[in-house]
Amino acid sequence: MDASYRLPRGKRIKLSDYDPGDTSSFKEKEEVQEQFEQLKEELNELQDKLFAQKKYSLLVVFQGMDCSGKDGAIKKVFSGVNPHGFRVSSFKKPSAEEAAHDFLWRTHREAPAQGYIAAFNRSYYEEVLITRVHGQTDEEEAKRRFKQIKHFEKLMTDNHTKVLKIFLHISKSFQISKLQQRLRDPEKTWKFDPNDILERNYWDDYVQAYEDVFSHCSFKEAPWHIVPSNHRWFRDFVVLSLIVEALRELPLAYPKPDAKVTELIGLLPEDTRPEGAAPKGY
Amino acid sequence: MDASYRLPRGKRIKLSDYDPGDTSSFKEKEEVQEQFEQLKEELNELQDKLFAQKKYSLLVVFQGMDCSGKDGAIKKVFSGVNPHGFRVSSFKKPSAEEAAHDFLWRTHREAPAQGYIAAFNRSYYEEVLITRVHGQTDEEEAKRRFKQIKHFEKLMTDNHTKVLKIFLHISKSFQISKLQQRLRDPEKTWKFDPNDILERNYWDDYVQAYEDVFSHCSFKEAPWHIVPSNHRWFRDFVVLSLIVEALRELPLAYPKPDAKVTELIGLLPEDTRPEGAAPKGY
Repeated sequence: MDASYRLPRGKRIKLSDYDPGDTSSFKEKEEVQEQFEQLKEELNELQDKLFAQKKYSLLVVFQGMDCSGKDGAIKKVFSGVNPHGFRVSSFKKPSAEEAAHDFLWRTHREAPAQGYIAAFNRSYYEEVLITRVHGQTDEEEAKRRFKQIKHFEKLMTDNHTKVLKIFLHISKSFQISKLQQRLRDPEKTWKFDPNDILERNYWDDYVQAYEDVFSHCSFKEAPWHIVPSNHRWFRDFVVLSLIVEALRELPLAYPKPDAKVTELIGLLPEDTRPEGAAPKGY
Repeated sequence: MDASYRLPRGKRIKLSDYDPGDTSSFKEKEEVQEQFEQLKEELNELQDKLFAQKKYSLLVVFQGMDCSGKDGAIKKVFSGVNPHGFRVSSFKKPSAEEAAHDFLWRTHREAPAQGYIAAFNRSYYEEVLITRVHGQTDEEEAKRRFKQIKHFEKLMTDNHTKVLKIFLHISKSFQISKLQQRLRDPEKTWKFDPNDILERNYWDDYVQAYEDVFSHCSFKEAPWHIVPSNHRWFRDFVVLSLIVEALRELPLAYPKPDAKVTELIGLLPEDTRPEGAAPKGY
């Protein structure tokens, strides 16, 4: 799964070469259902070890056009993991305090501690995307930021944080159908932001800004992945696969108890419950 | 469900009057399974509205002796909720920076924003429990803190945060059987803290400190609940019920779109996908 969606390093990418409607060899949701459930179980097992070991961590960066399904993918893939070891951080317009710092400051604070998984719903990449499209970041500054991002991600990967970057790829016509859905479903209208309509006019500029990001910021240890996202079920399946594969690459293991703890096993009073009286559910 | 586990205000509580092995009228897990699943679904629906409305929030405080199942209850009850709107905060020994502030500072920072649910795994109550048992907080200071906690919780409830306080009630013999389990299961040994054995010697002091907390800090709008927790399945069932009931009491509703957004529905280009070509999974 992984290899086909992982971007090569230092190569110019054309988004139009990638089909947002791709579903690989699958035709419908039912074909991946069983594997999806197995992968979720494996994610739980891997997360349990990650959390117990407190040595490695995982950062999953989600980017994509409005309506590409960042919220939905995070919800679908991560609901079910142990919430103790997982956090979502959503980055919207910076606050005054955030804007008064360098552009990596607010995201750095939310980086996962050892043992944790963090999902970034948007990220520091916005500072070379939306700000670039709207002329707040010029070419020179963008180039500096690409380097700063590279150094920031290197800092994380050097310190046992796996960095997985995911772009949810949709078509422009898919976006309009999602916007229409949001407007017509009273339980979804709250998600509708009139600004999305205005941003839509900058579609081609965003494509170019993303292509620049992919070209400059796909590093060996922190590559970008383009996930076809016109089909929700396939999007979730690929995202989950990428996350499980990222965790599989880590040498995760339950920590061995130290000698002191092992000795205690002998010293503990015996279980005093009478046979067969074990509390139910244990 | 709620009323029977909610503590009255200002009354002296004896923990020994509460049976940690209680399972109400139920004999085994299977009897509550269906209702548990229904409640989880309702929790998801209520959370979706809470998050959309961004007006109210919920703080669930979990306290209990070591091994009472705070981690387990939070995992069981909240795995499945939309992780965007939910955070667990675990409070262990304060850091140097935290200890240099008043005792409510570090927890206040983690209070839920409007629209969010926060679970506190231990809380500011530790500062009238563990510190009291070990003589770091004297009677005078404890009394002051009870009042400060009252004012802090009033601040939250005045500002649309529902405060639900849950004590997971286990027996001393149940605790030892859990400690034994942790020591003998290589996948659980990492949870074992030799300190738990030492703390066990203070069991009666903890009981008294908790009884004091219940007597001084059960307020009309932020009552304590004692949840029988010797049986994991019953514990989770009661905790989930309490959370759902707390959310039901809030006037949650999806926000109505403003006139500007309603107008946009007419202006949007029509869905241009040919009939029957709707993306799969939508």
